[in-house]
Amino acid sequence: MSETPHHSDDVQVHLKEVQHLLARQKLVEGLVHRQDSPKHELVETIVHKQHLAELAERLEKLHPADIAYILEALPLDERVIVWDLVKAERDGEILIEVSDAVRESLIETMDQAELVAAAEQLDADELADLAPDLPSQVMEDVYLGMDAEEREQLRAAMSYPEDSVGALMDFEMVTVREDVTLEVVLRYLRLFDELPDHTDQLMVVDRKDRLRGVLPIGRLLINDPEVEVGKIMLTEHLTLEPGDGADDAAKAFERYDLVSAPVVDTHYRLMGRLTVAAVLDFVREQSEAELLSQAGLKEEEDIFAPVFDSIKNRWRWLATNLVTAFIASRVIGAFEGSISKLVALAALMPIVAGIGGNSGNQTITMIVRAIAMGQVSEEHGRRLFRKEIGVSLFNGLVWGGLLGLIAWALYGDWRLGVVMTAAMTLNLLLAACMGVAIPLTMLRLGKDPALGSSVLITACTDSGGFFIFLGLATFFLL
Amino acid sequence: MSETPHHSDDVQVHLKEVQHLLARQKLVEGLVHRQDSPKHELVETIVHKQHLAELAERLEKLHPADIAYILEALPLDERVIVWDLVKAERDGEILIEVSDAVRESLIETMDQAELVAAAEQLDADELADLAPDLPSQVMEDVYLGMDAEEREQLRAAMSYPEDSVGALMDFEMVTVREDVTLEVVLRYLRLFDELPDHTDQLMVVDRKDRLRGVLPIGRLLINDPEVEVGKIMLTEHLTLEPGDGADDAAKAFERYDLVSAPVVDTHYRLMGRLTVAAVLDFVREQSEAELLSQAGLKEEEDIFAPVFDSIKNRWRWLATNLVTAFIASRVIGAFEGSISKLVALAALMPIVAGIGGNSGNQTITMIVRAIAMGQVSEEHGRRLFRKEIGVSLFNGLVWGGLLGLIAWALYGDWRLGVVMTAAMTLNLLLAACMGVAIPLTMLRLGKDPALGSSVLITACTDSGGFFIFLGLATFFLL
Repeated sequence: MSETPHHSDDVQVHLKEVQHLLARQKLVEGLVHRQDSPKHELVETIVHKQHLAELAERLEKLHPADIAYILEALPLDERVIVWDLVKAERDGEILIEVSDAVRESLIETMDQAELVAAAEQLDADELADLAPDLPSQVMEDVYLGMDAEEREQLRAAMSYPEDSVGALMDFEMVTVREDVTLEVVLRYLRLFDELPDHTDQLMVVDRKDRLRGVLPIGRLLINDPEVEVGKIMLTEHLTLEPGDGADDAAKAFERYDLVSAPVVDTHYRLMGRLTVAAVLDFVREQSEAELLSQAGLKEEEDIFAPVFDSIKNRWRWLATNLVTAFIASRVIGAFEGSISKLVALAALMPIVAGIGGNSGNQTITMIVRAIAMGQVSEEHGRRLFRKEIGVSLFNGLVWGGLLGLIAWALYGDWRLGVVMTAAMTLNLLLAACMGVAIPLTMLRLGKDPALGSSVLITACTDSGGFFIFLGLATFFLL
Repeated sequence: MSETPHHSDDVQVHLKEVQHLLARQKLVEGLVHRQDSPKHELVETIVHKQHLAELAERLEKLHPADIAYILEALPLDERVIVWDLVKAERDGEILIEVSDAVRESLIETMDQAELVAAAEQLDADELADLAPDLPSQVMEDVYLGMDAEEREQLRAAMSYPEDSVGALMDFEMVTVREDVTLEVVLRYLRLFDELPDHTDQLMVVDRKDRLRGVLPIGRLLINDPEVEVGKIMLTEHLTLEPGDGADDAAKAFERYDLVSAPVVDTHYRLMGRLTVAAVLDFVREQSEAELLSQAGLKEEEDIFAPVFDSIKNRWRWLATNLVTAFIASRVIGAFEGSISKLVALAALMPIVAGIGGNSGNQTITMIVRAIAMGQVSEEHGRRLFRKEIGVSLFNGLVWGGLLGLIAWALYGDWRLGVVMTAAMTLNLLLAACMGVAIPLTMLRLGKDPALGSSVLITACTDSGGFFIFLGLATFFLL
């Protein structure tokens, strides 16, 4: 029986306890290494075993999600110790809960038989999540041990792309017929040992398993037991198809405050259901992925990953930025003659380029978010251009004007100040135009506007900023 | 009776329909302006009215969340037309659903009486969300119309900070006593017209309203009606307090797949409950806020906001970046003598600074995410330093070496290539150290590591990169 959490931050307490037990453990190992006499070793081994037993007992009481959390927060060596202590029959449910990167590190420590045993504990939809990380031999063994219905569910769950409803749905639900009374339904439910999690509605199906409606549990409870299901079931409700985007489904769950929704095939046959638990996980994972990709991290990193895993995760972004930085550098190179005549330009040019990048990123972030919410489409282009040009003209004249005054004061040349102000304003205008044009163009081309927008606009405002500033200076000052 | 959505992207269809009706509307107005004869005007006014009636009819069938979505996606003038057509008795529930920025624009169009009427439709917890946006005179009127229990609930909901459980909880729940049988509970529930949304468990309380346990609906349904509530209720379950962080509560909901959780005061008296719907909204809002703040946007912007609202939302970030860019510019200014002797330095220096910034942001993002998940604490500092230094040494030597070769080829001076490689490596090391040190220091000081980390590290790698590269060049090349 696993311990149910009482407070929302209990898991932090559990983590601290495990870390404390592991630290004592290490202390013991340290003693063993220092004192080499066999007698000491024996004593220490006993103490060592006691500590491990204490740790195992502690772990046994924890919720699988809490153990997953602890495993993620531990460095590799300690993680392996804890993983070995977890009872084998819980391996499956814990592997489902940990992050991809940590899951890999756990699977590496398990042999064929252990993996098969762990996989066999899982429902078809859970197994589908785990399958890509398992050796194919393991999957074959597990597949052989399944019945026909489970095989069909596994096949279905694995056949849909990662961000679709089909990949997130599960198959546990209660179905009833529309021509029975609530009394019969209530008696039927008493036959269950427990209802599936998130059963807020029963699915009403006909003989061919086609969805006829849903019966919210609330309606079942408030109505007279003599009433027939068909009389009070809902026929107007959200129905998903497995090919629907998980993102759209998540937004529907948010808008209509749903707990579960039926998933049907093209013939309206009931296939499974989507629950708010899967939606909540999806929303969190998606927002994490967006935050990481903004900084050029390909995926969530195991924070204690070996150095080379990190390098692999990050190199693409660095390489891209190196190319754009190199282009900007060649733009400056074209003006080396001007810089050697007026070296102040070298000191002032990064300001023009940098502020353009910041401003452009503000514009593009706002528009990408609005596109993601489905609230901006191509026809809004002109209106958005007008607004962003207004904002950047104002900022260019105010902040650019201020910097112009400072440049004048620093270098005693009012013409340099004017060039500075003009360059700032022009680069902010460039940033505004690109900030609107890039995401709208991506949208028109059917690409995800969130991907690479930030690199692209920084490349424009860097090279553009250097070109505008050095070009104006060359033309007017030299 | 509002139309229930059938498909997850139905709302997009609704939006297109409303936009289409509005466009026809505009066309009519255009005709009226062009043809000034009174007879024409009369005809057009009738057509105009027909269109508005059609639009109003369309809106009446929509879910309030869908109307909110449509209002957000419309430019100001069209938004006001649609808002005027929405039936007054739905104003309250729609105001709750729209984003803060759009809510302001809607409230501006309403008079005192309309606002009071809208506010009076809401539950105490919803009213608490709306209260900060309402004129104080409106709130006074609404308050006078409430009974004592509602006033107490409103006071409670408004007394907790925005990111706490208290601010997200609601007060609708079903309570039962532990000494009654399930049969009695079932009969009691049949007295309700409907159960509150998200009633997945009944709260079991004693005479003094102290929480004794929870009775999951599933247990109510599968057990014999003769059994007493006390026998099958759960006493081990998650209990929240209103002062708990909403973020911790959200993580608990995700980990344990909860639908609702009771909220109690320090005497264990039942105050309210938190539902997964509130959690899902919170998670989405929080991740939006993080994405926006990464780009220096203070809050979600009404995409069609007037120019000055946008400027206010964005100026702080631009001002901060201006200061850091100015400091970097003065670092370059200190080496103007070196640049005038070897102007290639001006072209190469932005590469060193820029790549340092990218690399530092990768490090800091990863660590900030891990801290947010509670998986990194101060004692991991040394381990993280070692890993990040390894990554940046590798990247510095490989990418820096490549750039060194290019610099040699471009400028025909191998010593310049060596300086380039060395500067890249040193700046990446600086980025790694700062990327670990900044968030861990913020954590130690009890500050949110997500705030401002990115600006801070870019400031370090910009000024640091210029200093390292120009300093090395001055020392070894001149």
